[in-house]
Amino acid sequence: MSPQRLSQDYPWVSSPVIVSAPMSGFAGPALAHAVFKAGGIGFLGGLPDIKALRTALQDVTELVTGNRLLQPETTLPIGLGVLLFAQKLDEVVALIAEFRPVAVWLFAAHESADFGRWTEAIRKASERTKIWIQFGSVTGAVNLAQSCKPDVLVLQGADAGGHGGEKGAGIISLIPETLYALQSLELDDMSIVAAGGIADGASVAAALALGADGVVMGTRFLVAEETVVHPAYQAAILETEDGGQTTTRAKLFDELAGPNIWPKDFDGRALIAQSYHDHIQGISIDEIRKSHAEAKQTPHLGFDQENRRAAIWAGTGVGFARKKAPASEIIAEVRQAARIALERAITVLG
Amino acid sequence: MSPQRLSQDYPWVSSPVIVSAPMSGFAGPALAHAVFKAGGIGFLGGLPDIKALRTALQDVTELVTGNRLLQPETTLPIGLGVLLFAQKLDEVVALIAEFRPVAVWLFAAHESADFGRWTEAIRKASERTKIWIQFGSVTGAVNLAQSCKPDVLVLQGADAGGHGGEKGAGIISLIPETLYALQSLELDDMSIVAAGGIADGASVAAALALGADGVVMGTRFLVAEETVVHPAYQAAILETEDGGQTTTRAKLFDELAGPNIWPKDFDGRALIAQSYHDHIQGISIDEIRKSHAEAKQTPHLGFDQENRRAAIWAGTGVGFARKKAPASEIIAEVRQAARIALERAITVLG
Repeated sequence: MSPQRLSQDYPWVSSPVIVSAPMSGFAGPALAHAVFKAGGIGFLGGLPDIKALRTALQDVTELVTGNRLLQPETTLPIGLGVLLFAQKLDEVVALIAEFRPVAVWLFAAHESADFGRWTEAIRKASERTKIWIQFGSVTGAVNLAQSCKPDVLVLQGADAGGHGGEKGAGIISLIPETLYALQSLELDDMSIVAAGGIADGASVAAALALGADGVVMGTRFLVAEETVVHPAYQAAILETEDGGQTTTRAKLFDELAGPNIWPKDFDGRALIAQSYHDHIQGISIDEIRKSHAEAKQTPHLGFDQENRRAAIWAGTGVGFARKKAPASEIIAEVRQAARIALERAITVLG
Repeated sequence: MSPQRLSQDYPWVSSPVIVSAPMSGFAGPALAHAVFKAGGIGFLGGLPDIKALRTALQDVTELVTGNRLLQPETTLPIGLGVLLFAQKLDEVVALIAEFRPVAVWLFAAHESADFGRWTEAIRKASERTKIWIQFGSVTGAVNLAQSCKPDVLVLQGADAGGHGGEKGAGIISLIPETLYALQSLELDDMSIVAAGGIADGASVAAALALGADGVVMGTRFLVAEETVVHPAYQAAILETEDGGQTTTRAKLFDELAGPNIWPKDFDGRALIAQSYHDHIQGISIDEIRKSHAEAKQTPHLGFDQENRRAAIWAGTGVGFARKKAPASEIIAEVRQAARIALERAITVLG
């Protein structure tokens, strides 16, 4: 609703604004920096290990500034993802105060009031840091817009890879209906960023047509050269097509290594693997966990075709992650294709 | 891929091309005719009762021509939906030969070879009748494009109301990936029509950006004045919002009145009703059927809030079906909003 706010708040961005998702364990300093350099908004994934998170923030500061020092009164032009249910507010907020990331992306709380606590603490610790909140329902997004007044609402559709609401619509209806509701309440001064199934230029163009001011890609960046990803995991992403058929949403993927620690309304979209087939056939979770643990001991950690039992998070757009490339190339290709797609749409409209 | 084919084959259409879904039991002569008059493409829903279908075709012929006679060498400018698993080829093809609908929309076969049999028989019976085939996966759509060479491929995303593939992506990734695959195979001379979650101008604009040549709306037309729908059913549609949370896909909805007759890979999206809550809680199908049968005896047939146990088919875009209106008004509003949405997207792109 306020596309100009994105270019004001992140003055290095080019249009369309492409954001790399804060994929925990995958989105490290190199990817966040590469996306920043390409005129996008790069995010570090949230890490429960606070020491590792501190190192990541130091490393990305060095990549951006050439040393480990940030000028006073400035922000680090990199975003930080936070998984609310898995990270400690005090620890993370202390890092935010120290490193002043330009944006913090809040996701996955046990209770919606947690978003308020985090928002307040972050704003107090680093007033220039923008608050991004991700949600996947109209009602939830509108409630958070009212209670937290985030700078950016990330609207996540059911096509997204990795974690999200167990129930949900694709962005095709989620975004327009949320915008309609926000406008009715005159809550239309925040930016809207779309996530879920966006992996090529046409889907970027579609997200803008739906009313988004920018877009998130996650799965597509799993094949960026700068992403931290096991080769067998990346190979699985590269070879998979037709994501609506080859991925599925399930809580099972969070239960493979032990009890599910995610908030109750969450599940995740991942490649359909043997673990999932077993689950559908009624095999007990204990047996599935045992087989999973065995697969994790094999050379490819259960990611390869032969022993595929581990969770390989991927969205329905996985078919567009068909070639490993630097993030800058991925972004350039998607940007150009988005323009072509919009021009085509205008022509069809006549 | 061939938007110009739509305006050649259906010369009365205005852009963007809006199609009313052949909703069985809901999309009758009045709706199909109203959509035609508004410059869209109106479809009659498929009906297993061949006599009722004949009457519907007679009635819509009369609405279009002013009498029951179609000029020789012409087609009836109305489409006909066919549910392959539920209708008899010989019976339906005889009607197609007699009434020459401009298009026949094939959906829901037990086996993909059935699409070939129907396509061939229809082409032989009425050579001017265009073949539309609906599918919801990249692989399936591409295979049907190769084997049947339909004039129109309807790509149906998981957000769609009513029946569709049990597994599937939203159109955000389904359409671009299918187009990519079709282009790679040089199968790019058919028109692509998008279905699933499209209910307002922004989603229409998004579908065009994704590469569609036209769009289908179903749920939104459930509140058209010309649609055949029980008042309590329509009231439920009108009052429901946030479709990602208030609808769900399940096979259960096809089991409420007896055994499920749909092909095995199908389910349907409907409002979450008490029957579904019961199912999730492990209540037996026999009990659920008994309660459903009782609810069907109440004045509102189990559609009202108090006794809601019957299937109320709706897509995730149900929140935009907020006002009863003539189909022509719905179409005019959506068309105008689609233009505004695309213009906004171009502005955001800069």
